[in-house]
Amino acid sequence: MAARNGIVTLTTDFGTADGFAGALRGAVLSAASGVRVVDITHEVPARSVREGAFALRAAAPFFPPGTVHLGVVDPGVGSDRRLLVIVDHGMQQVYVGPDNGLFSYVLDEARAFETHEIDPAGFRATSTTFHGRDILGPVAGRIAGGADPLSFGPPVVEPLRLPRHVEPMGAREGRVLQVDRFGNLVTTLRPLGGDVVVDVGGARVARRVTCYAELAPDEPGWYVGSLGLIEVALGDGSAAEAIQRGVDAPVRLL
Amino acid sequence: MAARNGIVTLTTDFGTADGFAGALRGAVLSAASGVRVVDITHEVPARSVREGAFALRAAAPFFPPGTVHLGVVDPGVGSDRRLLVIVDHGMQQVYVGPDNGLFSYVLDEARAFETHEIDPAGFRATSTTFHGRDILGPVAGRIAGGADPLSFGPPVVEPLRLPRHVEPMGAREGRVLQVDRFGNLVTTLRPLGGDVVVDVGGARVARRVTCYAELAPDEPGWYVGSLGLIEVALGDGSAAEAIQRGVDAPVRLL
Amino acid sequence: MAARNGIVTLTTDFGTADGFAGALRGAVLSAASGVRVVDITHEVPARSVREGAFALRAAAPFFPPGTVHLGVVDPGVGSDRRLLVIVDHGMQQVYVGPDNGLFSYVLDEARAFETHEIDPAGFRATSTTFHGRDILGPVAGRIAGGADPLSFGPPVVEPLRLPRHVEPMGAREGRVLQVDRFGNLVTTLRPLGGDVVVDVGGARVARRVTCYAELAPDEPGWYVGSLGLIEVALGDGSAAEAIQRGVDAPVRLL
Repeated sequence: MAARNGIVTLTTDFGTADGFAGALRGAVLSAASGVRVVDITHEVPARSVREGAFALRAAAPFFPPGTVHLGVVDPGVGSDRRLLVIVDHGMQQVYVGPDNGLFSYVLDEARAFETHEIDPAGFRATSTTFHGRDILGPVAGRIAGGADPLSFGPPVVEPLRLPRHVEPMGAREGRVLQVDRFGNLVTTLRPLGGDVVVDVGGARVARRVTCYAELAPDEPGWYVGSLGLIEVALGDGSAAEAIQRGVDAPVRLL
Repeated sequence: MAARNGIVTLTTDFGTADGFAGALRGAVLSAASGVRVVDITHEVPARSVREGAFALRAAAPFFPPGTVHLGVVDPGVGSDRRLLVIVDHGMQQVYVGPDNGLFSYVLDEARAFETHEIDPAGFRATSTTFHGRDILGPVAGRIAGGADPLSFGPPVVEPLRLPRHVEPMGAREGRVLQVDRFGNLVTTLRPLGGDVVVDVGGARVARRVTCYAELAPDEPGWYVGSLGLIEVALGDGSAAEAIQRGVDAPVRLL
Repeated sequence: MAARNGIVTLTTDFGTADGFAGALRGAVLSAASGVRVVDITHEVPARSVREGAFALRAAAPFFPPGTVHLGVVDPGVGSDRRLLVIVDHGMQQVYVGPDNGLFSYVLDEARAFETHEIDPAGFRATSTTFHGRDILGPVAGRIAGGADPLSFGPPVVEPLRLPRHVEPMGAREGRVLQVDRFGNLVTTLRPLGGDVVVDVGGARVARRVTCYAELAPDEPGWYVGSLGLIEVALGDGSAAEAIQRGVDAPVRLL
């Protein structure tokens, strides 16, 4: 494990209007005031573990080794769901958050990782509804400040996992994983090598491009997106609206 | 007063679309370029001092001692409203902003604080409409960089205050203070110790829970929220919409 | 050129929901992990180079000398549009982004600047759609970490420019440049010295004020805004809605 670099990223569904994202930043900084907090996003739709997992997959791998990623999308807060610290030995990243699948998509890419539970007894949890501020933020801050990430509780065999966000190499059938802000449809499929037609719930997209600029404004095309996955877009505008397909629509390569 | 820790938090109603929050960050960093700027929120509804006060109350107390909190919700900018620096000696936090009540809710919790006015003559205010950038940001940056917070002008007897955000200990009558992003209703009342029924504008909520997960999706319940105040929520969804009550609705403990 | 101060600002149209802004932050920090990333905005309307240029103009000049400003509003990503590094010798700021006019408004104010193209051959661009993450972020990070900003490729005679965002001194005819979050209309005109009537697409605003607080809630007035440009506002509410005028509406000083 690389030495920690003092960076803590934040991925939450708190929004940025109420001050709760600010409270979380404060809790991290109070645990180790020299740390830098860097947002991935606070705009995960409320309680959507899947969308949080996607945001983490899109961003976490691009941070330097030794980064701590704090994820708080936690509809089960206050229940007996576990809180975890996960160390990805390959990417040399640390994940801190609830055991609800939030780190599934980054772990889909991990070769070797280790998971420990956080023993909450070590924390004066002043609330039953904001463990991000009262437990997870302090843990992330302490790890970024140099604490052993696997020292907060006993090992866990396997964290909860969502269905894989990417099909196996060579797969021809998958689904829409995410619709991004521009209305591009991100699929769970990797390119096969040759040219194919991408069928999204019956809507067929034949043209392969390398960038949006090759397409006429309302022309659909597919390309290999920034996560290495097949995406469908228009030259200008929302492909999701144009072809009326969204998350979980079936995708086939013809 | 603890030594400053080099952190300046930002709470504004600028939104994040125009670049004005960026200008404020730049102004702080130009005053002391080693400082770290950390957002509480820029999504305070335009000109809503009350919502800004709530965001500060939710976040500021969780930052480490020696933090400078810059608040710019300032509908009176350019008028003769005063600009203030407030030092909370107990919490060891510094507040910088207009004298319009923005720091009321954090001061409700302060045992001993001291307030000085900022003499604007020391600043080349290049605008009459953006004192955040031209005066307050530089003051906050200089304080975070080590300047004496009470050196920018003469003492002030009492800053403007909003009505208290929390009723006295033992009170049974209060109001809805805030509706958060999840539609939870935060009240001005603290728990009494035993079980009570929470009446929000005639809608009665009897079930006390310790977390959302104990509730069925459309079942309302109350609990002690992350600010130590009674809150009303559904298991899943917006309690505010479900019971059709909002800010300032009367609340009684029966 | 002043020494770099280790600050990289970000101006994009990524939004903050998907994790792509987070990926960009990670890419900058991976290039030079001691750097501080500071947002100007990620809420530029999708693919709107003009709005990105405005956000940069509003914020970049207020950062300390030696700041690197990374702008990624890049509808032409993956096409043969160039990627640039621009050094403003007067303001001592560095700009990194696509050659599409994004830095026009800050350059309108620059006395002497130098532009070099980025040779993408030096970068393992893992995507054709996210050069922000794969090329521009790393370049900005390396410059902030001390690399020579003009070392990434050959000189360029002139970057693409949008029409000037401010009319020449003494001009009486211009246009609405921007409508801000409060509904204030920012024009391309500077004040003439004496009192004038501001005509916005036929709607005449005679009252000059120095701040919003001088106006009745629905009374329109004009003033010199925080960018030194004439703006039209109401005492409370949106002037753009009240007079039904928006971006590019003609403005005359009568």
